[in-house]
Amino acid sequence: MKYGQLNANLIEELQRHLQIPVKYDEESLDRYSRDETAEVKAVRPEVITFPVSTAEVSKIMRFANEHLIPVTPRGAGTGLSGGAVPSFRGIVMSFEKMNKILEFDEANMMITLEPGVITGEIQKLADRHNLVYGGDPCSSESSSIGGNVAENAGGNKVMKYGPTGFHVYGLEVVLPSGEVTTFGGKRLKDVSGFDFVHLLVGSEGTLGIVTKIILRLLPKPKYSVALLVPYPDIDTAISAVPKLMSGSGVVPTSLEFMDASSIKATCRFLNVEFPYSDAGAHLIIEVEGNSKDSIFDDYVKLGEAAMAAGGLEAFVADNRNTRDKLWKARKSIAEALAAVSPIHSMEDVSVPMASIPRLIKASEEIAEKYGLEMISFGHAGDGNVHVTFIKGNLPQDQWDRNLPLAERELFSKTTELGGCISGEHGIGIKRKKYLASIIDESQLELIRGIKKVFDPNNVLNPGKIVDL
Amino acid sequence: MKYGQLNANLIEELQRHLQIPVKYDEESLDRYSRDETAEVKAVRPEVITFPVSTAEVSKIMRFANEHLIPVTPRGAGTGLSGGAVPSFRGIVMSFEKMNKILEFDEANMMITLEPGVITGEIQKLADRHNLVYGGDPCSSESSSIGGNVAENAGGNKVMKYGPTGFHVYGLEVVLPSGEVTTFGGKRLKDVSGFDFVHLLVGSEGTLGIVTKIILRLLPKPKYSVALLVPYPDIDTAISAVPKLMSGSGVVPTSLEFMDASSIKATCRFLNVEFPYSDAGAHLIIEVEGNSKDSIFDDYVKLGEAAMAAGGLEAFVADNRNTRDKLWKARKSIAEALAAVSPIHSMEDVSVPMASIPRLIKASEEIAEKYGLEMISFGHAGDGNVHVTFIKGNLPQDQWDRNLPLAERELFSKTTELGGCISGEHGIGIKRKKYLASIIDESQLELIRGIKKVFDPNNVLNPGKIVDL
Repeated sequence: MKYGQLNANLIEELQRHLQIPVKYDEESLDRYSRDETAEVKAVRPEVITFPVSTAEVSKIMRFANEHLIPVTPRGAGTGLSGGAVPSFRGIVMSFEKMNKILEFDEANMMITLEPGVITGEIQKLADRHNLVYGGDPCSSESSSIGGNVAENAGGNKVMKYGPTGFHVYGLEVVLPSGEVTTFGGKRLKDVSGFDFVHLLVGSEGTLGIVTKIILRLLPKPKYSVALLVPYPDIDTAISAVPKLMSGSGVVPTSLEFMDASSIKATCRFLNVEFPYSDAGAHLIIEVEGNSKDSIFDDYVKLGEAAMAAGGLEAFVADNRNTRDKLWKARKSIAEALAAVSPIHSMEDVSVPMASIPRLIKASEEIAEKYGLEMISFGHAGDGNVHVTFIKGNLPQDQWDRNLPLAERELFSKTTELGGCISGEHGIGIKRKKYLASIIDESQLELIRGIKKVFDPNNVLNPGKIVDL
Repeated sequence: MKYGQLNANLIEELQRHLQIPVKYDEESLDRYSRDETAEVKAVRPEVITFPVSTAEVSKIMRFANEHLIPVTPRGAGTGLSGGAVPSFRGIVMSFEKMNKILEFDEANMMITLEPGVITGEIQKLADRHNLVYGGDPCSSESSSIGGNVAENAGGNKVMKYGPTGFHVYGLEVVLPSGEVTTFGGKRLKDVSGFDFVHLLVGSEGTLGIVTKIILRLLPKPKYSVALLVPYPDIDTAISAVPKLMSGSGVVPTSLEFMDASSIKATCRFLNVEFPYSDAGAHLIIEVEGNSKDSIFDDYVKLGEAAMAAGGLEAFVADNRNTRDKLWKARKSIAEALAAVSPIHSMEDVSVPMASIPRLIKASEEIAEKYGLEMISFGHAGDGNVHVTFIKGNLPQDQWDRNLPLAERELFSKTTELGGCISGEHGIGIKRKKYLASIIDESQLELIRGIKKVFDPNNVLNPGKIVDL
C-alpha cells in the first residue's frame, strides 16, 4: 500500500476547509510518536488532531480514507504494545478532548462515555452510587476507557469480573470509510447479527474508531478484604497459586504475584516499606462479599491454604487505607521498573492458571540461557504474568541479539502450555512478528480478511497486529 | 449462488470413498427439515450425516465446499429461529453422535465438550463438583451446548452470569474450507489477534462448525432462594420489574415474568396447581448467596420491594424441591404453548430492562390493532420477554396477512426503545427479512463481508441471518 503524504495543500484542506485544528510542532510530533512501551520503534506522525465530536472524527476519517492518509487513534498513550503510535506517518487522532461522561443511567445500571474518559473516574463514579465498574487495569489512574476497549484491558479483577469486554454492551463506531454506526446497546442479550461489539473490543483500533462506549455497572459488594502473604522464594509462591483455589474452594477477586525484585523496585520508587520486604515473593489475595460472616469464612480459608502452601505469614488488610497502600505498591511496579531499568521488555503471556508455575520456571531458564535479568509480577490468579526481561549489565549488542531469541522461546513455551502471547496489552507493533509464527495460517488469513472488509484501503492504524 | 446437487454419484462418493454414512429415508428427511420454530418454512435436505469426529466433519465440509453442496449444522433441533433447518437442500450435519464430555479440568475449572452434549448434563456435572455452569436456557434438558453456542443462548440467569458466550473460552472450529483451527483456550485473558471466539458465538453456524467447546465453570453459591409473587394484572407486574432492583439494591440471579395465560397453559400442560393461579401475572425472583444472613437480607428486601410495587403475596421457596417445581412450570411454557396454541409466533425482543413496561404496553396495543391474541412471559429482569402472538380464532388468511405487520411494528418499537429483535433465539430464517430493515446498510455489508471471508462459496448454513 502506497500512502498519501500530508503536503501543505492537504493540511490546508484539513484545517481551512474541514475546520479541523491540527498540531505539528516538533515537540508534539515527538510526544505522539511514543507511548509507554519500551523497546518499540515507531515513526513520527505528520500531524496530530484532537477531535471533540463524532462528527469531527467522521470528517477526519473520510478525508484520510479519500487521500490514503494513515490514521492512528490514541487514548491516553499508556499502552504497552505500541498500538497507539504510528507505524506509517499520517495523522494521530488523540481522544484527550473527547472525555465526557455522557450519561449515567441508574435504572439500567449502564453508563455512556466518550473514549477519552480516564478509567479511574468511572470507578469513582460507580463507587459513589454504590456500584462497581469491574474493569481494573493497573493503569486505571492514567489510561482511558477507549484504550482499555481497544486492548481489551484486563488487570486485577478478571478472575471475578472478566476483562474490559465483559462490561461493554454498546459502541458507537466511526468506520474507516467515515460512516458512523452503532453496535449493541443497553441490553443484556443480543443475538441479532454478529457480535460486532466484541469483535471491536481488543481489535486495537484497527477496525473502527470507538466514539461512544456503553458499560454495565454492577452492585458493589459490601465487604472487601485483602491478604498479603510473603513466601520464602518465587517457586513456593507461584506453586501456591493453583493450590489456593483448590485448597479453599474460594475464587478470589484478585490474586496477584510479585517477586522480590518487583517489590524492592516499587518500595524504592514510592519510598514505602513492605512487611517481609526481604521475602522471595509476595501474593496479594483479595476477596469480596456481602456479609461479614461469609467474607471472614472466605479469607480464613484462603489464608489457611496460603499458609499450608508455604506462606511465611498472612497479613489481613480489612480496612480501605491499608488495602489502598497495598494496591498502590502493586500498581506502581511498571512505573518503578521504567525508572529503575528503562531498558527492558515487559511480556504479557497468559496461560491456564494451573500452568503458572511451569511458565515461571520456563521463563527463568530462558532468561538464564540468554544472560538476561528477569523479574516477574502480575495477575497469577488468572494466568497472566508480566515476565520482564531486563538488559542489566548485558552489552547492548547482546541484548539486541538475545532478547528476540528469549521472547521466541517464551512464546513457544506459552503456546505449548495452552496459552497466548498477550493477555491484556495487545499485539500492536511489539508482538506482531511473533503472532504470525504462533497462530496458524488460516487464522492469519481470517484476520487479514476481516481487516479488509472494514478497512479496504488499510488507512486505520495500519501496521498493527498483522501485516497485510 | 448456484448449488450442486447430491446426485447418486456424489452420494456414492460420500459413502463409499469418504466412508461417511448418510441417511435419506423419507421419515428422516422430514424430521431434519424441522426444529421447534413455529411458522418457519424450510426445505428438506438431500441427506443427513452424523459425524463422530472432527476429522469426519472436516472431510464432509471439504467435500461440500468442493462440490458446492449446502451444509446445515444441527444440534438437538430445539432452535426457535429455524437456524438448524435447511434453506437450500444439501446436507444436514447432525451432532447427535458427537456428545462426549472430553475433559473436566478441575484445577482450571474448565470443561471441554463435544457440541452434542445436552446442556443439562453440564449443569449436573458442575453441580456434582460444587460448581455451576452459568448458562441456563429453558431448553436445558433438551438443547445441546453446540446449539447454545451457535445462538448465544441466554435463558434465566443472564442478569448474574451473562449469556452462553460469557462462559465460552475456547473453540475448535472446522472452517467452511474443511480446515480445522482453534480459537482461544483455557485462559482467562487473551488479546492476541481478534476475538474469534465471540465472533463465532451467536453466528448461528454460518462462519464455522464448532467441534469442541471449552467452558469455564464457577463456584456454586451456597444458598439459593426463589420468590413467587403474584400481581393483580400484567401492568402492575411488569411495572414492578425496574422498581425491584432500584427499590432493593439487589440484582437477583433471575427475574422471570409470566402472564395469566402462560401460567394457565403450563399448569394445564403439567397438571399442576399454582398459588393465585387466577392472578393477572406472576414474577419469579431468584437470589443466590454464600451466607444465610446475606441471602435472607436480599430476599427480604426484594420481597418488600415486590410487595410495595403491588404484589399480592410473596411466597418464599427456600428448598430445592419447591424451587424445582416453580422452575419446571416456568420452563415448560414454550412446550405448553406448542400443545395448546400450535399456530403462534414466539418473539424474542430484548430491550434495556427499564423499558420493559413500555415494551409490553406497546405489544398489547399492536396485538389488539391486528386482532391477534397475545401472551407474554420471559426474562423480564434482563429485558428479554417472549411476547407471543397467537392465531386464536382469526381466519388463516388474516393471520398470514397481519402477523408480519404486527411483527414489523413490534420490532420498530423495540428498536425505538434501544432494543434488538432477538435476545437469545437468533435471526435464522424467522427474522431475516426484518433484520435487514432494522440495522443499517453499513452493518449489513460488514456481516456479508465477514461471511464471505469465512465462507466464500456460501456453503455453510446459507440463507440464514442475511441474504448475500
